[in-house]
Amino acid sequence: MRVLGIDPGLSLTGYGCVADGPGSGRGPDIVEAGCFRLNQRACVSERLVELESDLAALVERVGPDLVCVESVFAHSRFPRTSITMAHARGVILLVIARAGCTLIELPPAEVKKSVTGNGRASKAQVQEAIAAHLGLDEAPEPADVADALAAALCGWHRSRSGALV
Amino acid sequence: MRVLGIDPGLSLTGYGCVADGPGSGRGPDIVEAGCFRLNQRACVSERLVELESDLAALVERVGPDLVCVESVFAHSRFPRTSITMAHARGVILLVIARAGCTLIELPPAEVKKSVTGNGRASKAQVQEAIAAHLGLDEAPEPADVADALAAALCGWHRSRSGALV
Repeated sequence: MRVLGIDPGLSLTGYGCVADGPGSGRGPDIVEAGCFRLNQRACVSERLVELESDLAALVERVGPDLVCVESVFAHSRFPRTSITMAHARGVILLVIARAGCTLIELPPAEVKKSVTGNGRASKAQVQEAIAAHLGLDEAPEPADVADALAAALCGWHRSRSGALV
Repeated sequence: MRVLGIDPGLSLTGYGCVADGPGSGRGPDIVEAGCFRLNQRACVSERLVELESDLAALVERVGPDLVCVESVFAHSRFPRTSITMAHARGVILLVIARAGCTLIELPPAEVKKSVTGNGRASKAQVQEAIAAHLGLDEAPEPADVADALAAALCGWHRSRSGALV
């Protein structure tokens, strides 16, 4: 089972793919993780073209069985940020659907709780928990990568428990 | 000069294309106008695939020199609506950029003022003004089509005045 998590953004889009570890009792291992750094000098539409191309290549490379993206909620304090992010999220959902991957949207609090035990954990707590779960020497940087891996891990656990939707 | 206006939405996306009329002193004529009605029963990602395909076909059919979309603003009263719309807008900007079309983003108040003389005109006023400008017997329905034509007309006037950006 390969699960790809994505944390959408128009400056940085984090991603992380995990897959079943070698032993049946172990948690998953990282297949690949990183982020797409979109050209800050380019206009929004050019960045979206870049994102489409980068993500389509990633999906082809890692071949996920499942893709997890956090569900959207209206950040009343930062509406403009949410609207900007939603442009990237639209292109991400498009690429995932076109590739025929199964997609699940996970509530942010469920993702945080799944990896830290606390639905209101800070970004730093998520980064530390991800390092511990995946046996990494250092916390993933930037936080967008840890957030993407957290979504992937949460989806992986859901798929194990048979509660995908 | 062919100008395509688009009014993004995940249920309905309105579009309208105008081009120079036969006489040099006349305003533009409609080339094509309508809306994409996305499948309400489909999930967001499937609708985005539908929108990508419909819009790419339209752009190829009408071959616009210029595409106009209203700029985004944060509707503080309806943040969720704006975020949903921004998913469609992201896919629209992607398709336009991929097709190599020139894109301009127009402030909503400028579009309304350009066609009605009032930057705070109602949807019905925009519909009536569009019918008058384009010599239509009836106001375009739904309002999304009139809004798209208003963006196209506003862009057409900008291009005439040489103030494209």
